[in-house]
Amino acid sequence: MTAAEHAEVRPSITTGPITGSRKHYTVTASGFRVPSRRIELSNGEHFDVYDTSGPYTDPDATVDVHKGLPRTRESWREGREHNTQLGWAKAGVVTPEMEFVAARERVDAEFVRSEVARGRAVIPANRNHPETEPMIIGKNFLVKVNANLGNSAVWSSVEEEVEKMVWATRWGADTVMDLSTGKRIHETREWILRNSPVPVGTVPIYQALEKVGGDPAKLSWEVYRDTVIEQCEQGVDYVTVHAGVLLRYVPLTARRVTGIVSRGGSIMAAWCLAHHKESFLYTHFEELCDILRAYDVTFSLGDGLRPGSIADANDRAQFAELETLGELTRIARERDVQVMVEGPGHVPMHKIKENVEREEELCGEAPFYTLGPLATDIAPAYDHITSAIGAAQIGRYGTAMLCYVTPKEHLGLPNRDDVKTGVITYKIAAHAADLAKGHPYAQDWDDALSKARFEFRWNDQFNLSLDPDTARAFHDETLPAEPAKTAHFCSMCGPKFCSMRITQDVRAYAEEHGLTSVEAIDAGMREKAKEFTDRGAQVYLPVVER
Amino acid sequence: MTAAEHAEVRPSITTGPITGSRKHYTVTASGFRVPSRRIELSNGEHFDVYDTSGPYTDPDATVDVHKGLPRTRESWREGREHNTQLGWAKAGVVTPEMEFVAARERVDAEFVRSEVARGRAVIPANRNHPETEPMIIGKNFLVKVNANLGNSAVWSSVEEEVEKMVWATRWGADTVMDLSTGKRIHETREWILRNSPVPVGTVPIYQALEKVGGDPAKLSWEVYRDTVIEQCEQGVDYVTVHAGVLLRYVPLTARRVTGIVSRGGSIMAAWCLAHHKESFLYTHFEELCDILRAYDVTFSLGDGLRPGSIADANDRAQFAELETLGELTRIARERDVQVMVEGPGHVPMHKIKENVEREEELCGEAPFYTLGPLATDIAPAYDHITSAIGAAQIGRYGTAMLCYVTPKEHLGLPNRDDVKTGVITYKIAAHAADLAKGHPYAQDWDDALSKARFEFRWNDQFNLSLDPDTARAFHDETLPAEPAKTAHFCSMCGPKFCSMRITQDVRAYAEEHGLTSVEAIDAGMREKAKEFTDRGAQVYLPVVER
Repeated sequence: MTAAEHAEVRPSITTGPITGSRKHYTVTASGFRVPSRRIELSNGEHFDVYDTSGPYTDPDATVDVHKGLPRTRESWREGREHNTQLGWAKAGVVTPEMEFVAARERVDAEFVRSEVARGRAVIPANRNHPETEPMIIGKNFLVKVNANLGNSAVWSSVEEEVEKMVWATRWGADTVMDLSTGKRIHETREWILRNSPVPVGTVPIYQALEKVGGDPAKLSWEVYRDTVIEQCEQGVDYVTVHAGVLLRYVPLTARRVTGIVSRGGSIMAAWCLAHHKESFLYTHFEELCDILRAYDVTFSLGDGLRPGSIADANDRAQFAELETLGELTRIARERDVQVMVEGPGHVPMHKIKENVEREEELCGEAPFYTLGPLATDIAPAYDHITSAIGAAQIGRYGTAMLCYVTPKEHLGLPNRDDVKTGVITYKIAAHAADLAKGHPYAQDWDDALSKARFEFRWNDQFNLSLDPDTARAFHDETLPAEPAKTAHFCSMCGPKFCSMRITQDVRAYAEEHGLTSVEAIDAGMREKAKEFTDRGAQVYLPVVER
Repeated sequence: MTAAEHAEVRPSITTGPITGSRKHYTVTASGFRVPSRRIELSNGEHFDVYDTSGPYTDPDATVDVHKGLPRTRESWREGREHNTQLGWAKAGVVTPEMEFVAARERVDAEFVRSEVARGRAVIPANRNHPETEPMIIGKNFLVKVNANLGNSAVWSSVEEEVEKMVWATRWGADTVMDLSTGKRIHETREWILRNSPVPVGTVPIYQALEKVGGDPAKLSWEVYRDTVIEQCEQGVDYVTVHAGVLLRYVPLTARRVTGIVSRGGSIMAAWCLAHHKESFLYTHFEELCDILRAYDVTFSLGDGLRPGSIADANDRAQFAELETLGELTRIARERDVQVMVEGPGHVPMHKIKENVEREEELCGEAPFYTLGPLATDIAPAYDHITSAIGAAQIGRYGTAMLCYVTPKEHLGLPNRDDVKTGVITYKIAAHAADLAKGHPYAQDWDDALSKARFEFRWNDQFNLSLDPDTARAFHDETLPAEPAKTAHFCSMCGPKFCSMRITQDVRAYAEEHGLTSVEAIDAGMREKAKEFTDRGAQVYLPVVER
């Protein structure tokens, strides 16, 4: 089914550049056009940032959601139909996707290949999703952010979900997951896939459950298999599979404060107990590998027994499942299928590091993909913040992708504003992790904004921020006048009194007199003191009055 | 000057209990009434949380902002006029304030005394601020949060600042700082002091600068001394003093990306260079100690050379000043004056721990009081989040009090909504730190909310959260109906499909059949499988349909 068959669906989507920046393309050796967002600065310099927004922010691109995005990667795959990124990487071949990703991450293509070959990074790119701009997920690359979308039985429409996808990638979502559980699951997914510039992930068990009327006991390998094939054919790039929820692990959750909170995990637990059989996801895992390999779809091994509260973090049920995920990771890799491993959830700060260490040890450094984790449970309505505190830290320790949490987590389904808040909050967590890991590009971005701040280049400061519109709007609340955007004072202190202004004068003075060392300052300062006092009289005259 | 003399000022303040809770008092051995906030739960239990809101949330209290709060501590100080909390603690005496604090923190009074005696905790309580409810700041107590208030030359009024103070303490601010820099500094402070149930801090150099027309070169020890005495007389509980900004350190900031960003630090740096003299705050520090001791005002030794950007974190200028703050800490303690030490600012995650370790080593574990720190500079308008990421971690490592940051940081002055967002965000960071430090009270709170969530006690979940009103409002957006507040499903999944619901059934089943261990589940499960399948049919009938 194509988007065109749904002409009655009329999504209104957001297009046009983000304030203060424009689309910029770098052309690789093979002629691939790699996008970035170029921020032009008032001092004549510019700063390029990683761009996930696709053609929607390019005024020169024609966008028709009924036709879908251009199928750019279609031509790339010729002669490569029968192998995966992992397969080619093992064979020493640098694929077009690897070349594209290398330019995007500003690293060598051979390094990308070697990281994919050893399974420490994945490039989720279903060959039936040619609209996607290749990206890589791995601890030695920029930390990525996923945004969850999807309507449910109680709420939301196809149109809303398509705009949420465009909106989420506009603000920096590196992948999106369609978690729809209501009606029109296939149709919603079709609209998202044909229009998504980023990889799309799903949890096939949700649709399979709909097919059997919502009763997990009625699920079967056959129904699940057909659902996975349907989704792979459609172009889904990665699928969450809760194949680690084994019959013998289920009772380990009985004494938890919050039992099993993963939807997929609870469905499989119910099935296992109902039939007293081992999970069909586990017993048929090799067949599942064969299906995914045929499309180069990436596994995201789900943590169905992840903790749902601070009290349950790092318990036996969670780590027992992780061991099984490690076993499944090895099986998939042997079959050239790319693998990510999912992680918690709800974890107090002092137990975060252990999650990364165990995952790397048990799963051979497969890219770790965590939900938050929330560092406390007492702040529903602020769980984007409670979880960003955990996400930044787990990212610092090596987690490759962070699944965002919106302010509505635990309370309701996110609207468009919640999606933006969630994405920006998680870009902060991911970037803070990149900084702590010593990523040169991350440091450059902070330095560029800090320099603009110190030099009172207000518009540059706004444009270099993750959300230029809100930064400018907040400044306008206190100092709306346009001259204030170039004034040598900030709204915190006012014109008469500004620490940065004083500092600039102290600095200019120190530089002017070569007072850049402890020794220098003691040399002949006294006669220069008066001179400074004279200049000091000017210090407090705001530029706007000059 | 008393509040009554300002009858023309008409602050409208927020009173009444926080939704779902009521004021509760515990009476100590000496008869002191220690407040807490009691949350009544629908299962007949209740949960008491630490309460900073003062009489404003007590319907039985009469509030008149023109008279000010009751001067409760006035009677406590008899016979203790001539010594400080530190002095009495050293002498082995448990003061009324220590007894009050012990009940509030649920620890032994002797433990409070010993922590104060060794300088590892402070009780900021000016004997001229009898309206305050004593609280303690130290690494072995609950992590505290400060909210900054204060109008500037460009914005805000006395009325607004008084309401901001009441509003900030309502949501959990443990102390407030009045950083007013405009006109009416004394008057604004008087209104805040007479009506504040929490300790009030200031930065006297701001008012001193106003007195000399805003030119730092015109400042003198005499002007500063008189300003400090004026503020101590008024009842200020702690004062930030940037006495560590020494002449020889100033040039160390010349090559920074953002120079000197502390207002007090830049003022003193300008003075030092103008006169080529050592800071009068440093050369007159002993006299300053004598003044503060006379009122039992606590030092908050300011970090005037703190980094203003990620690039400048942990540099030579910052740590050189910290060494001097350690020297000043020893001098003040010898004179029985309580001391806190202030910290950054802007620090990437991997450099946070070193800040706490150095402060504890150089300043003899004096309570560390940090501003954030921001873990990245690229998100103005979201700096409450960038800084909460850093604050939670620095709190975990031992910082005793966290100075909040609002969404308006670097952009403008916070309004009432920003103040609430900043306080709630920092309560999250402080609580996450308490959890990571293994505080039993913190874990109990998380468990209480998680249990309510798991048992679908929606109203209990809202009422146990840091912001019940917003949590409930978000739930209403998706499921407004009152029955939904008791429905056995959550709005994320809808009635037909809910992981927590499935888990409850799995759990009930496992418990019922004694399947709480790996061994048990393998014993005679098969015959019980059919029975579960029969019950399974009910699993998806929502309670509201029964």
